[in-house]
Amino acid sequence: MAKSPHMRRAVRGLMPKNFMKALLIGFGNVGRTLVEILSDGGQYCKLKDLNVSIIGIITKNHGSLVNSRGIDLIRALSEFRKGNFAAANPDRCDLDALNAVKELEYDVMIETSPLSIEGKGEPAVTYVREALSRNCNVITANKGPVAFAYSELMAIAKDKGVLLLHEATVMDGTPLFNMARHCLRGARVTSLEGILNSTSNYVLSMMEAGMSMDQAITLAQKMGIAEKNPMYDLEGWDSTVKLCVLVNALCNAKITPFEVDRNGITDITSDQVQNALRAGKHLKLICKAKLDESSPRAEVKVTEVEARDIFSTVKGQGAMLKIYTDIMAPFVVSQTDPTLPDTAYGIINDLFEVKDHISLHTNKAG
Amino acid sequence: MAKSPHMRRAVRGLMPKNFMKALLIGFGNVGRTLVEILSDGGQYCKLKDLNVSIIGIITKNHGSLVNSRGIDLIRALSEFRKGNFAAANPDRCDLDALNAVKELEYDVMIETSPLSIEGKGEPAVTYVREALSRNCNVITANKGPVAFAYSELMAIAKDKGVLLLHEATVMDGTPLFNMARHCLRGARVTSLEGILNSTSNYVLSMMEAGMSMDQAITLAQKMGIAEKNPMYDLEGWDSTVKLCVLVNALCNAKITPFEVDRNGITDITSDQVQNALRAGKHLKLICKAKLDESSPRAEVKVTEVEARDIFSTVKGQGAMLKIYTDIMAPFVVSQTDPTLPDTAYGIINDLFEVKDHISLHTNKAG
Repeated sequence: MAKSPHMRRAVRGLMPKNFMKALLIGFGNVGRTLVEILSDGGQYCKLKDLNVSIIGIITKNHGSLVNSRGIDLIRALSEFRKGNFAAANPDRCDLDALNAVKELEYDVMIETSPLSIEGKGEPAVTYVREALSRNCNVITANKGPVAFAYSELMAIAKDKGVLLLHEATVMDGTPLFNMARHCLRGARVTSLEGILNSTSNYVLSMMEAGMSMDQAITLAQKMGIAEKNPMYDLEGWDSTVKLCVLVNALCNAKITPFEVDRNGITDITSDQVQNALRAGKHLKLICKAKLDESSPRAEVKVTEVEARDIFSTVKGQGAMLKIYTDIMAPFVVSQTDPTLPDTAYGIINDLFEVKDHISLHTNKAG
Repeated sequence: MAKSPHMRRAVRGLMPKNFMKALLIGFGNVGRTLVEILSDGGQYCKLKDLNVSIIGIITKNHGSLVNSRGIDLIRALSEFRKGNFAAANPDRCDLDALNAVKELEYDVMIETSPLSIEGKGEPAVTYVREALSRNCNVITANKGPVAFAYSELMAIAKDKGVLLLHEATVMDGTPLFNMARHCLRGARVTSLEGILNSTSNYVLSMMEAGMSMDQAITLAQKMGIAEKNPMYDLEGWDSTVKLCVLVNALCNAKITPFEVDRNGITDITSDQVQNALRAGKHLKLICKAKLDESSPRAEVKVTEVEARDIFSTVKGQGAMLKIYTDIMAPFVVSQTDPTLPDTAYGIINDLFEVKDHISLHTNKAG
């Protein structure tokens, strides 16, 4: 597939001066999909102006790659398919994430490591804090830092004049956070209502189709929708963490997952699902937050939804958020079944924001 | 209600230096609601940073107000409730729109005059062209200029380094155009599908509830949803014009209303509506556009929609747009029953964009 000259140079590790240097923490599904998209300038022709160069890919157990002139992404992907970055790769090293964040030279850190609820978002919170403190922009696809330490981290970002972005944390690349930053100015978000977790929504949908919960979970795992241990989704933790990210970022409020009235779908029986269906209704795991004068109230709870309610149309892995403001009638943003490129696009959109920010800053300084 | 000091000064016609000067063309429902919101710094506290001052309000038949230091908005609203701006108002003059656009000093022109299909968007197209040519930013709530002359006008805006914005033209203040500018960068919009006209959707909804079309139209008129002459909505013109605005702005394609395969709801019978309902379906006026390599194909047509299709949930005056891109699964933006503040907020969001643009430009020059 044809690549633009810029893209070709970036892929080969020869980086023009105006390229943005990115450090990638984690190389799981999301990180790899991001790199696949960035290295394919032919298919996604509108990405050719992004001008990003990955100068480090750091993994916990599969080695790391570092090259200040830009990593050969095609080679990285190809090696990783065999399990690890190759020992023969000249960029191969064993730098760990914390040292990479502290020592390498980069414009933006992209955090894609897994969320830890028990660790209250650590160690990612530390990585983000360190990067921001070094005047580097941060994009996180990991919900931990924004669910557990939003106000602290955002204060550092403001102080340092850099961005902390997280579009991919909720509903993947579907515009939510950047949309709110740019398109809801002057409006105050007063409450939120949504279906945010795909696994639990998929399981409830399959139970409506006649499966038992166990059968539905097994199917979801087979299809790659649910994790091996799906309890994080089924007990409502994923929904809770996402709701916190939304409340923190859209409502300028302060809440952490342990303050949410959290319920999951684990106690729901086939009978309950079928009884609702016979009454023309649907059981959905609904997230709700209301901003009062004092503090936000937030809950995650299975709720009976009318057939013609818009939330009833969220099928399979879809997600939906209804946003209430002080000035407009409520509006809804919804995504249909997302795939990995959807999540990676959330990061890409954030990279465009960082690019603008850097360019503005450079122009002002010069 | 308490007002910020800035707002109070603006209302009284004493404008600090960093205020953005706005010229308002038209003072119908939308223009008046905008001015009501802008003059109420208490209720909408997040608007206090907008720093806009209206230096001219131009009407066709009710006189005009001009004051380079800012018009007294409270007085303007109060006078207009009696039919015209008062002869005793020191700012009162009889400047017409074209001369105002050509001669006054302003940073942004806000065009809220009615759309003319027969006139192919004129005279608003001329006002917009003149303002842009004078290096002034333009916000239009009038769909005419963007449906009929998008590419010409956008080329002038680019050449002059100013903005041409139109968030309020489709789905009021619900984020669509500014969302796409900021949040879909690097993605290519490949097709669109939507319910865009509230009157026809309301009439179809009432026919489902058992009314005849005539009864539904009369009710819609009583409720202020439909115009005295509702044919523009019922024959699909409003949907068509909105679809053109979307195609021109989101897909970077070139289409005008006369190139759309346009159908309205006028031929739909109660029997058709009820038959669909008995089959568990809903008749909806659906707008569709597909971007091929060559040119866009667009149609507006009554379509049978499945009960659990998301379009079925658009009730009353709601609207919905489904956006397909090359990189993500499709996503949906939808609004529930909008009121006048919704439309005015579209303009307010554009004003924030213009403010940023001016501030950036000023910083660069300085």
